[in-house]
Amino acid sequence: MIYFDNSATTLPYPEVIKTYEEVATKIFGNPSSLHQLGSQSSRILQASRQQIAELLGKRTDEVFFTSGGTEGDNWVIKGLAFEKQRYGKHIIVSDIEHPAVKESAKWLQTQGFEVDFAPVDKKGFVKVDVLEELLRPDTILVSIMAVNNEIGSVQPIKAISKLLADKASISFHVDAVQAIGKIATDAYLTDRVDFATFSGHKFHSVRGVGFIYKKIGKKISPLLNGGGQELGFRSTTENVAGIAATAKALRIVLDKAKIGQKKLSAMKKVLFDSLSHYDDAILFSELAHFAPNILTFGIKGVRGEVLVHAFEEHDIYISTTSSCSSKAGKPAGTLISMGIPSRLAQTAVRISLDEDNDMSQVEQFLTIFKQIYEKTKKVR
Amino acid sequence: MIYFDNSATTLPYPEVIKTYEEVATKIFGNPSSLHQLGSQSSRILQASRQQIAELLGKRTDEVFFTSGGTEGDNWVIKGLAFEKQRYGKHIIVSDIEHPAVKESAKWLQTQGFEVDFAPVDKKGFVKVDVLEELLRPDTILVSIMAVNNEIGSVQPIKAISKLLADKASISFHVDAVQAIGKIATDAYLTDRVDFATFSGHKFHSVRGVGFIYKKIGKKISPLLNGGGQELGFRSTTENVAGIAATAKALRIVLDKAKIGQKKLSAMKKVLFDSLSHYDDAILFSELAHFAPNILTFGIKGVRGEVLVHAFEEHDIYISTTSSCSSKAGKPAGTLISMGIPSRLAQTAVRISLDEDNDMSQVEQFLTIFKQIYEKTKKVR
Repeated sequence: MIYFDNSATTLPYPEVIKTYEEVATKIFGNPSSLHQLGSQSSRILQASRQQIAELLGKRTDEVFFTSGGTEGDNWVIKGLAFEKQRYGKHIIVSDIEHPAVKESAKWLQTQGFEVDFAPVDKKGFVKVDVLEELLRPDTILVSIMAVNNEIGSVQPIKAISKLLADKASISFHVDAVQAIGKIATDAYLTDRVDFATFSGHKFHSVRGVGFIYKKIGKKISPLLNGGGQELGFRSTTENVAGIAATAKALRIVLDKAKIGQKKLSAMKKVLFDSLSHYDDAILFSELAHFAPNILTFGIKGVRGEVLVHAFEEHDIYISTTSSCSSKAGKPAGTLISMGIPSRLAQTAVRISLDEDNDMSQVEQFLTIFKQIYEKTKKVR
Repeated sequence: MIYFDNSATTLPYPEVIKTYEEVATKIFGNPSSLHQLGSQSSRILQASRQQIAELLGKRTDEVFFTSGGTEGDNWVIKGLAFEKQRYGKHIIVSDIEHPAVKESAKWLQTQGFEVDFAPVDKKGFVKVDVLEELLRPDTILVSIMAVNNEIGSVQPIKAISKLLADKASISFHVDAVQAIGKIATDAYLTDRVDFATFSGHKFHSVRGVGFIYKKIGKKISPLLNGGGQELGFRSTTENVAGIAATAKALRIVLDKAKIGQKKLSAMKKVLFDSLSHYDDAILFSELAHFAPNILTFGIKGVRGEVLVHAFEEHDIYISTTSSCSSKAGKPAGTLISMGIPSRLAQTAVRISLDEDNDMSQVEQFLTIFKQIYEKTKKVR
């Protein structure tokens, strides 16, 4: 099997599953319980939080656990809006955000908030100059992803940080779900960033666990009210096993990252160069300023889903550009935002590599690609 | 070890952990992915949903997964309020609801909704006649728990169902987190109930997974917007391993329930009768109309947390009445609502039994209770 769909989800590391199982069966107390079974759990919880904070270069009280990227994005977007609505009701998110951000913003529109969707250029990068023009005195939040999930473009978080440097009343949120472990942390977790969202299953942890970074002192309304866990910011009995597993996964993935990113870049370059030679291949991703693991391409006249199924006959797994929108059969929103005609956007498929993939898989993929390319010639 | 804190959380069944591990490692595709790894995951997801629906006697498309009881409660309370606000902005929740319901309702107050907190009698049951008086033409939601988490009183869901029978504009939500497996399903999942909340870790599943029952056709705004999973009602990549584990746990727990409930009642009766003989013991729970697993009591003049620690020295784990509020050192909200003076409420501790406990543990507990009762005489 060649699994090239790692931006959709990853296989949990065996060590991560082991940690999960050990904590779930041996340290099962409710962290809120006063007795020692509770304290044991609570200590694991805090140790996991501390480890994650240290790995990100942040404070322990700046890490808050969630059920994943979608909850993190919903929480920051809506929680910030409700918290700061008396100061203003204007929000800016990029036009290529993940649906968890974009749909949250659209929901806020139904609640009386004004939202601007910052446009991107034809390569898939937020236009910082246009973003600047969209800023208003009543803007309370700017939300821009670090790495686009559909084509892998790395967004200009540093430039936007500079733009917002003297605008303290605007909170800056970065969806870092596709960035962590794939690009350097300081490229997206700048000092200006107030909130960032992370999801465990994108870096070999278990499903259903994520966390947000919330800069110390920054206020946000809870999305989940209740028993007062997570310093009152996010109630619910803590998923300690999943959290410990996630801390472990993050350590492993960041340990691997430096060498891993070079490996990813090398694999992507071979794929990119090889696919470029085919007249009817369209490359939606590039090398420079793109994540080293994502390559989105198409074959003119062949719908993405046809390609996905053609590859899967050879036990190779790739994706239409976003698993979330794949079943709806919609073309990739990012490509449409880039001005690519719907007819071309519908050809797009995404390869998303992982440190555990290797060059022999890339070569196998290219061999199969050649076959599929020839085969589809008749129908194109 | 004698673990009598099963209302706080339960130890996952070994079979449940096994299912979790198998799915997490072998069927790891994203259910939204178009390829067969996605379809495999999607099939497990749907099979789990079907199993849970059948166990509850409901339709498959009436079960929606969540990250736990708190999310379920927040989703129903807030989602219903936002969905139906044009018809009215009045909500009724009981005064003894779990904080996930009560704090959600209080948050809605800050958003312009009116909330009435339906009072309970001195034994901890919602007063149906007073509830009736609170109903208004603009009431959109009534939320009453099935089994109170602090003392175990079984709420009159059938009577309230009758009261609401001809009031179709009012949605009826039941927090069933402490009820499932402990009392008969038809006692709280009546035909009139529109929504119900469940949490996996309260019935030996893993942490971080729950589900809600949503009657077919009933509308509710999503709490988590995004990729459109769960028929668009709850976005986020599905925690398939946790969901499959939860379906398995529910089957086991409901299989055990009929015999289990008798066993629980028998154990509780011995505890109840024995504790009744102590002059300074106060029993906040009763036998009739209470869940068979929860017994809340105190010793006059001894703070609950002192009792918790005294028992844990003997490797016996009980709880101040709700783990959520225990660290805040607040007396049980339910007891205060019942009109019990704060001084007495602060003595309360909760025994919460499980089918896996047995009579010998009950006897050991009573032996230790006697010692602690004698020992604390000097300080009382």
